[in-house]
Amino acid sequence: MSTLDKLIGDLVAANRILANEHIVDGFGHISVRHPTDPSKFLLSRARSPELIEAEDIMVLDLDGSKQPGDDRKPYLERFIHGAVYERRPEVQSVVHSHSRSVIPFGLVGETIRPVVHSSGTLGYEVPLWDTRTKFGDTNLLVSSMAMGRDMADAMAGNNGVLMRGHGSTVVGKSIQEVVYTAYYLEWNASLQLQASMLSRNPINFLTKGEVDSIIGRISDGLPGEGFSRAWDYWCRRAGVAG
Amino acid sequence: MSTLDKLIGDLVAANRILANEHIVDGFGHISVRHPTDPSKFLLSRARSPELIEAEDIMVLDLDGSKQPGDDRKPYLERFIHGAVYERRPEVQSVVHSHSRSVIPFGLVGETIRPVVHSSGTLGYEVPLWDTRTKFGDTNLLVSSMAMGRDMADAMAGNNGVLMRGHGSTVVGKSIQEVVYTAYYLEWNASLQLQASMLSRNPINFLTKGEVDSIIGRISDGLPGEGFSRAWDYWCRRAGVAG
Amino acid sequence: MSTLDKLIGDLVAANRILANEHIVDGFGHISVRHPTDPSKFLLSRARSPELIEAEDIMVLDLDGSKQPGDDRKPYLERFIHGAVYERRPEVQSVVHSHSRSVIPFGLVGETIRPVVHSSGTLGYEVPLWDTRTKFGDTNLLVSSMAMGRDMADAMAGNNGVLMRGHGSTVVGKSIQEVVYTAYYLEWNASLQLQASMLSRNPINFLTKGEVDSIIGRISDGLPGEGFSRAWDYWCRRAGVAG
Amino acid sequence: MSTLDKLIGDLVAANRILANEHIVDGFGHISVRHPTDPSKFLLSRARSPELIEAEDIMVLDLDGSKQPGDDRKPYLERFIHGAVYERRPEVQSVVHSHSRSVIPFGLVGETIRPVVHSSGTLGYEVPLWDTRTKFGDTNLLVSSMAMGRDMADAMAGNNGVLMRGHGSTVVGKSIQEVVYTAYYLEWNASLQLQASMLSRNPINFLTKGEVDSIIGRISDGLPGEGFSRAWDYWCRRAGVAG
Repeated sequence: MSTLDKLIGDLVAANRILANEHIVDGFGHISVRHPTDPSKFLLSRARSPELIEAEDIMVLDLDGSKQPGDDRKPYLERFIHGAVYERRPEVQSVVHSHSRSVIPFGLVGETIRPVVHSSGTLGYEVPLWDTRTKFGDTNLLVSSMAMGRDMADAMAGNNGVLMRGHGSTVVGKSIQEVVYTAYYLEWNASLQLQASMLSRNPINFLTKGEVDSIIGRISDGLPGEGFSRAWDYWCRRAGVAG
Repeated sequence: MSTLDKLIGDLVAANRILANEHIVDGFGHISVRHPTDPSKFLLSRARSPELIEAEDIMVLDLDGSKQPGDDRKPYLERFIHGAVYERRPEVQSVVHSHSRSVIPFGLVGETIRPVVHSSGTLGYEVPLWDTRTKFGDTNLLVSSMAMGRDMADAMAGNNGVLMRGHGSTVVGKSIQEVVYTAYYLEWNASLQLQASMLSRNPINFLTKGEVDSIIGRISDGLPGEGFSRAWDYWCRRAGVAG
Repeated sequence: MSTLDKLIGDLVAANRILANEHIVDGFGHISVRHPTDPSKFLLSRARSPELIEAEDIMVLDLDGSKQPGDDRKPYLERFIHGAVYERRPEVQSVVHSHSRSVIPFGLVGETIRPVVHSSGTLGYEVPLWDTRTKFGDTNLLVSSMAMGRDMADAMAGNNGVLMRGHGSTVVGKSIQEVVYTAYYLEWNASLQLQASMLSRNPINFLTKGEVDSIIGRISDGLPGEGFSRAWDYWCRRAGVAG
Repeated sequence: MSTLDKLIGDLVAANRILANEHIVDGFGHISVRHPTDPSKFLLSRARSPELIEAEDIMVLDLDGSKQPGDDRKPYLERFIHGAVYERRPEVQSVVHSHSRSVIPFGLVGETIRPVVHSSGTLGYEVPLWDTRTKFGDTNLLVSSMAMGRDMADAMAGNNGVLMRGHGSTVVGKSIQEVVYTAYYLEWNASLQLQASMLSRNPINFLTKGEVDSIIGRISDGLPGEGFSRAWDYWCRRAGVAG
């Protein structure tokens, strides 16, 4: 199997996993940068993640343009992906979701920060981006490169951004890493929410040193072991080949 | 297949979807206005949504009367549907449910308003209707046209109404739209509840301009794409043909 | 099929339903009064509800004694059932469970009262019973008729009682009714909990008149329709014949 | 079947049960002390619990060393298990998990204590252990015997310990008991959290006398009945032989 075919297989599996683990539902999407042409990325045509097959995967330019002769309908919000790949050369995969425990934080202006080692891959915090600040009253969808770039700028050097009244976007250096981070962002938000409800005591977040230790571990290639252990498990649960 | 048969097929599928997505359980119902006679509507005989087949669908007049010769038992609360079709000519489909995150708002007099773009189809807010105000101590069921009309009046021009100590009713221009709105009302309530528990900060609801932008999009026919994407996904999950 | 065999079939189905709907887990039990001898009742041998078959059903005297020649091991807590049948001649079926949303109320001394029409079958409120008051430091299990009677006295004329640090017991005039009430007690507790977390506003409980209207409806035999509609649905979900 | 083979079978079943009941997910592990050599214990190679087969089980020394000739990759955190077996001769089985309701307590410094009879096997309370106190900024994983011993010391004579920003570890005298305790620790945390959110009233925890009564019951061998009833149920749900 070619590198491209293998990557498309992983992308299809990732769609199924994200649906099966309730990170995406009828909406949401995951992309991966093209393995040989960093100015392009792979993303399904407009379809619910659970239903996606290899034949649905399209190649898009970073500005969201389709390739000549492809008349399939892409996701309106493909600019989320293109803008992040444009701004962040090291990013290889992007997930946009409406996962449920994350959204309440944006509604009341509370910041999500890692509370457990599993979510240290997010970085120090998850900044909040609000369409209304620069674009006024819209339907909140990221429907242009201008909006996508503004969102990517808000994410800055972190690995996730919270989108007010909408959802979140996370990034990683591989499909396996970004699925892991998307899953543990949801989990982290749920834990942080429960801690806030349990007590008025301040939350004992991970320190910067602890996050650095976890991120450093990734740089050392070590948590790749964690990514692949979880990936194997999620593949089994979703009924797809690993 | 005739238009009527197609609509009955969609109505049966909608019942299964609403049960499978936990919007209804043993109770709750969905109806659709008759495709050629707007003074009638289609609704199952009194049965749990998950069990409904095409043969269970009855034709009712807007006042809840059965057609001559039909000796099946209709839902007691068919007046919810008839009264809404009477008051709102543009409405084509109605869902009544006890979906769980919605009810607490009526118990403490808090108003549900859209917090995410997905629930913008509800309109600006979900008004509260209380049987006790006009009808005193009852078993809370909508058992007459007088009660149904009072509920429909409380909904006014919005697309949903909260029923104190009971559940909610939502409306739409198609079966696909009303299933979408019923699903996202539940989700919106859950998010608004979590946001209220997370912080004493005021909630950043969608503005009227944002809701107008989403509703306008519907008028333009655009979110039909969203309705059908979700519909295809929910059909797959519920094991019914789309 | 004899009346007794039919009743045993319903009792087995009820065990499966309660497990499938997460009202009981590995622990909990449901009994029914003997159809021809009101001084006896039917209850499974000590087994998890999900695993119970017709052959597991034992006949017990109201004081918990086994019939001569039956060497199977009964539940330690059979006194819960016997004492209720002794104190309340009209009761035909009893469920004891650890269903999860109910227990927190006993831990902080808050009273569960019906907030929706579906749980009106509980009566005006669910009194709290605490083993510690009369029996001091025990392992909290109802291991004697003295404890069972004390619990039944605390329930008084209501249809449910909350057991501090343990669970709850509900009663009904049929297997179908008590399963319904056990299910909606859990649901009511969950709604009341969410309402308490949502706002400091007082909760708008059902009035006594509303509960009387619902209970009266039962006396009129009307909600029997509701019991059987839900029963058919739960049987389908649990994969048992109705 | 030999005692060792039987124990390995139970260990595999326990992994499946813990995954199926959502106590572990892609991460977490359960071990058992070697039945004939108390200076060794049995633990799977580094794999997600749901996927573990008998062939994955390794024998480790208490200091985490592998046996000669075994080139499989063990869990990094095997020191959690070894240190507990070293410090607590009576302990026969250990579970480490990230079960979700437990973690928030460590984030805000609230203590988990038994609120229901089912979780009395935990002992009087679940102490909090924080890597940061002695080891500073780390990635929070228990990656040495020094860390494992520090954690075991924090647990003292209790049957569980909460690990800040990470998860928890529980111990028991058999695989069946430790699975039971791991399950009811999660449940207890969930109930205690709900009680805290429901009311500002103080929580009515089990008294020391009540815990003693439950623990004493274990010493008498009685709750073995409870352990095996739950075990049979969990085996059925997980699709493994009991």
